Amino acid sequence: MIIVMKPNTSEESVKNVLGLIQQRGLETHVSTGEEVTIIGVIGDKQKICSCNLEIAEGVDKIVEVTESYKLSNRKFHPESSVIKAGSTQIGGSEIIIMSGPCAVENEEQVMETARAIKKSGAQILRGGAYKPRTSPYSFQGLEEEGLKIMKTARQETGLSVVCEVTSLAAIESAVKYVDMLQIGARNMQNFYLLKEAGKTGLPILLKRGLSATIDEWLNAAEYIMAEGNPNVVLCERGIRTFETATRNTLDISAVPVIKEKSHLPIIVDPSHATGVRSYVKPLAMSAIAAGADGLMIETHPNPAIALSDGPQSLTFPQFDDLCNDLRPIAKVMNRTF
Amino acid sequence: MIIVMKPNTSEESVKNVLGLIQQRGLETHVSTGEEVTIIGVIGDKQKICSCNLEIAEGVDKIVEVTESYKLSNRKFHPESSVIKAGSTQIGGSEIIIMSGPCAVENEEQVMETARAIKKSGAQILRGGAYKPRTSPYSFQGLEEEGLKIMKTARQETGLSVVCEVTSLAAIESAVKYVDMLQIGARNMQNFYLLKEAGKTGLPILLKRGLSATIDEWLNAAEYIMAEGNPNVVLCERGIRTFETATRNTLDISAVPVIKEKSHLPIIVDPSHATGVRSYVKPLAMSAIAAGADGLMIETHPNPAIALSDGPQSLTFPQFDDLCNDLRPIAKVMNRTF
Amino acid sequence: MIIVMKPNTSEESVKNVLGLIQQRGLETHVSTGEEVTIIGVIGDKQKICSCNLEIAEGVDKIVEVTESYKLSNRKFHPESSVIKAGSTQIGGSEIIIMSGPCAVENEEQVMETARAIKKSGAQILRGGAYKPRTSPYSFQGLEEEGLKIMKTARQETGLSVVCEVTSLAAIESAVKYVDMLQIGARNMQNFYLLKEAGKTGLPILLKRGLSATIDEWLNAAEYIMAEGNPNVVLCERGIRTFETATRNTLDISAVPVIKEKSHLPIIVDPSHATGVRSYVKPLAMSAIAAGADGLMIETHPNPAIALSDGPQSLTFPQFDDLCNDLRPIAKVMNRTF
Amino acid sequence: MIIVMKPNTSEESVKNVLGLIQQRGLETHVSTGEEVTIIGVIGDKQKICSCNLEIAEGVDKIVEVTESYKLSNRKFHPESSVIKAGSTQIGGSEIIIMSGPCAVENEEQVMETARAIKKSGAQILRGGAYKPRTSPYSFQGLEEEGLKIMKTARQETGLSVVCEVTSLAAIESAVKYVDMLQIGARNMQNFYLLKEAGKTGLPILLKRGLSATIDEWLNAAEYIMAEGNPNVVLCERGIRTFETATRNTLDISAVPVIKEKSHLPIIVDPSHATGVRSYVKPLAMSAIAAGADGLMIETHPNPAIALSDGPQSLTFPQFDDLCNDLRPIAKVMNRTF
Repeated sequence: MIIVMKPNTSEESVKNVLGLIQQRGLETHVSTGEEVTIIGVIGDKQKICSCNLEIAEGVDKIVEVTESYKLSNRKFHPESSVIKAGSTQIGGSEIIIMSGPCAVENEEQVMETARAIKKSGAQILRGGAYKPRTSPYSFQGLEEEGLKIMKTARQETGLSVVCEVTSLAAIESAVKYVDMLQIGARNMQNFYLLKEAGKTGLPILLKRGLSATIDEWLNAAEYIMAEGNPNVVLCERGIRTFETATRNTLDISAVPVIKEKSHLPIIVDPSHATGVRSYVKPLAMSAIAAGADGLMIETHPNPAIALSDGPQSLTFPQFDDLCNDLRPIAKVMNRTF
Repeated sequence: MIIVMKPNTSEESVKNVLGLIQQRGLETHVSTGEEVTIIGVIGDKQKICSCNLEIAEGVDKIVEVTESYKLSNRKFHPESSVIKAGSTQIGGSEIIIMSGPCAVENEEQVMETARAIKKSGAQILRGGAYKPRTSPYSFQGLEEEGLKIMKTARQETGLSVVCEVTSLAAIESAVKYVDMLQIGARNMQNFYLLKEAGKTGLPILLKRGLSATIDEWLNAAEYIMAEGNPNVVLCERGIRTFETATRNTLDISAVPVIKEKSHLPIIVDPSHATGVRSYVKPLAMSAIAAGADGLMIETHPNPAIALSDGPQSLTFPQFDDLCNDLRPIAKVMNRTF
Repeated sequence: MIIVMKPNTSEESVKNVLGLIQQRGLETHVSTGEEVTIIGVIGDKQKICSCNLEIAEGVDKIVEVTESYKLSNRKFHPESSVIKAGSTQIGGSEIIIMSGPCAVENEEQVMETARAIKKSGAQILRGGAYKPRTSPYSFQGLEEEGLKIMKTARQETGLSVVCEVTSLAAIESAVKYVDMLQIGARNMQNFYLLKEAGKTGLPILLKRGLSATIDEWLNAAEYIMAEGNPNVVLCERGIRTFETATRNTLDISAVPVIKEKSHLPIIVDPSHATGVRSYVKPLAMSAIAAGADGLMIETHPNPAIALSDGPQSLTFPQFDDLCNDLRPIAKVMNRTF
Repeated sequence: MIIVMKPNTSEESVKNVLGLIQQRGLETHVSTGEEVTIIGVIGDKQKICSCNLEIAEGVDKIVEVTESYKLSNRKFHPESSVIKAGSTQIGGSEIIIMSGPCAVENEEQVMETARAIKKSGAQILRGGAYKPRTSPYSFQGLEEEGLKIMKTARQETGLSVVCEVTSLAAIESAVKYVDMLQIGARNMQNFYLLKEAGKTGLPILLKRGLSATIDEWLNAAEYIMAEGNPNVVLCERGIRTFETATRNTLDISAVPVIKEKSHLPIIVDPSHATGVRSYVKPLAMSAIAAGADGLMIETHPNPAIALSDGPQSLTFPQFDDLCNDLRPIAKVMNRTF
């Protein structure tokens, strides 16, 4: 931590700040420049978090020099992590595709989807049983009934299964049926939910919040990991910006940034990022070329009658075409698929 | 709902769309222009939400013409609502000030604060017992112990009391101690929590999410109100933008926009919006002049040692000075305080 | 300037960085912490701008500790500046209102407006003769013809006159007719235009760019002032965010931030910020209560037939009502109007 | 254009609006729904732009159904355009790489760069002679001297040459030396400059503004094309968002969106988008996989001593490595390089 003092601060103010820091058992280094004096603080910054130095007389600003996330930080864990979800390894050499409907509607829809996506090459089935919807009057999901349908599909096809959870009650149900829990964008800073999901020990797919910085996202992963659960997979799904041509703005840079700052795998969801079916394939291609470990792609037997997010869902032939075109890109990236 | 067709769409495609709508028992009006054909849909749009018209052949875009929120909408409730929290009326002629520490630390801190803010004119005591913090290594709050301290302060001073809740467990505790529940910005679209808070019947202070549009915010209020609880007070606390001079960007326009679109009261929190103590007073003045029904202002006996958000907290003399300067502004606005 | 090295950087890398800095005649201070080493650089940072230390081996990040703007910086000019535009003083004890149509359409419109706003209390007439419009097919302004009309209005009413300039040619015309030049939001980083406007010596009204940080805005002012022209007035007019309920988001916090960081006057334009007539008055009230030195408000004799921005223009009775309601707010703020 | 009336609007208000439209020779279609009345307007919307219907009694909102850009719109020009810059075709089957230093510093630097990038496969040399810099105290470019150096490099290597222009004077110089003019992000809505650049007839590389929507960007292209110059190439270079891990946020979705809405070629600049050298290669790969027609990549013989933007510049070996890895991606996309 570095403390930058205001120009022409009195010696007394500098001494006062040094005293506040040293009282907590931390060391200081002072650099006196032509314009400003700078104080470097050495030691465990947890000791100082309750000392609001910003408002001490003469302090101009405080600059953090180390990240607050540790367990998810590549600095302290240089090897890339490979996370196991059911029978699937995420973050290894294989590109992983999670696919399925936005919302589980009935068994027939899910079974048909599971068989189709498996045939095209997907390894994980996704499907929402608890749907966070902007309006209370929109379809909210089949809840436990939906989870049971997902389990049936998993038993029949051998696909691994991931479902979103939105409450402790949903977690308690989901652990009985699925291989991986998803924390959705709107709950990325629902810290209570992160902790409870962490306690299950199941792998967690952590979507980025609509307005979350990458730093906040890795801190959200830290909440899960601090519960003793290292099995976190990150999912970039678009951030909120001024642009309205797409529903959100896919932050493709997040892929190399996460690869540099963290050892956790990262996948990309172009379906929610754009909300438009015709943009899904180019962005899926783009994500793999940027270095992503996998994709989440919405599919539906008949998107025109889907209960949720139909306009961005691919039909099965469209999904099959996408998988075929991804293969050569994966190969160029030295990945299998 | 209006459906805009692409230029030169075939008659067959138009007929297909008309058929899809009419199947659901809705009426249509067709306008054929030089460039495009437009289809107006008349009737309850809930009937059509599962029909993904965006992907029907020939459809260019869908335009919503009515808001999805109803109970919070001024169109259907022209009178401004006045919400009762404990002994306090919010949204009436009186300007309401909620004040207190970001986090409850101990009884002495809270009692001292309660007495000071009451003397200056505040009507409601705020204090966090469950703290949503970006890092899992930051202070997370005293939980039920903190709620008990808040209740003691309420009994002694007669102030009404509001506390943030972050889980069903927290709600179950809080209903025993406080007059009003706060849903924080990070949980604004934690729909499960909104419903559970709604069920308590207690008045709810609903903070705006960091990247929530005003439309989404009113839909979040709708989740609470749809549980039969009309007692919602909105709180603008800054949105996330590119500007870094302040922690968030206070969206002052939200005050007149909410006043136009909704009948619910709105207060403003300049402490969290800016994160900087010296900007709190000018923005508090500004909020009342814009028509806000009240303010939430952080105060602390000794901000320099606060466990959370010290740099934005006012000392008691600063808070007293603010209240004194607010009085003439309130008077100009024909409000009492 | 502070250089933060990566954890476990070799001594050699640190020495290399120290060498690069010392070669340029600057002093260094090194602090070696448990996790990281920090290098403080002392001296004129202009010397080091061409040395891209970010990419030297072992460097984690560079932190600036001083602002790049000097002439507009309050640190080096503690007194608030008062700027003279024609017969009007901006930044003194008087609240200044600039008003008039978005676009000059004809002499009758301008004269009628000038008389009406003067009667209500405005001191400066605004009116666009060169209109930057998103589409090339929208009305682009009367150019020099418009400037002449503005001069006529100034001669008859005694109001000072401000017009936007968008090119060197426009500047060369405008200096013959107006008291103050406006640089619009879209040209805030048109550095060529800033320099040319600076050279005229006329007072410059510098609008904030739609996505400009406050730091960039003050650097734009610096371009003008570096030409020997200290007469800059800043105008906050809304920034671009995700919110669509208003055309832009008025960043009301910019008022106290500018007051702290700079000595230049700041006015607020609620008409362009919101694009909605009914929000203009509450935000105008709010701006004065936040400490702004004045306002820019669009008015038109008949907004329904205005050639540009009619929906946000006030009628004369609406403007008169606004001025009347501003007076008690100005008084509370110890300002005259 | 569609006009949505407020609920329970009087018949008189509806008649008034119909009258305003019909006066201008436009046809109307009225749809009366349960909640609202909708008026469709048929005919040339230019006729109605000066009629501010938003403020007519009873009007709730106006919805545009057609884009304001015509010449750049794929709806009216279904074939993709191929633009010729010097000896290079942009938008055809070949992937085009523009490369070179942010700023021209001296002849040796430029010649060395030109030879190196040509050898690696680049077809166009870029280099800034007029530099728009945030601070007036940063290096501003060699101006005409720099243009001459670029011409020399073109003569020796046969590469085509592109330079940014920032004023009419710069355009007048540049036409003597270069094959293509660049309009930078900060000038994307400097409409005067767009028109002057359009008049030259030279191909124009139009960078997207930091906060420009895709719609505004295509309208900026329209300004150039309306001068009779169809030779526009678009360049996505990152937009401004809340995320600070990268200098800007590369909006990769702009590639498929532009391909759908316009016939103009689009290239991507990952150097300015990220500001970080290690992210340039993954995002370059990603852009080609998304369907971009080319790239702009900063290179420098010795980035550590570059006068501008060194940290994001590639060394020649890094650039060569990037070109080698792009080749198989180009092949997968059925493009040559």
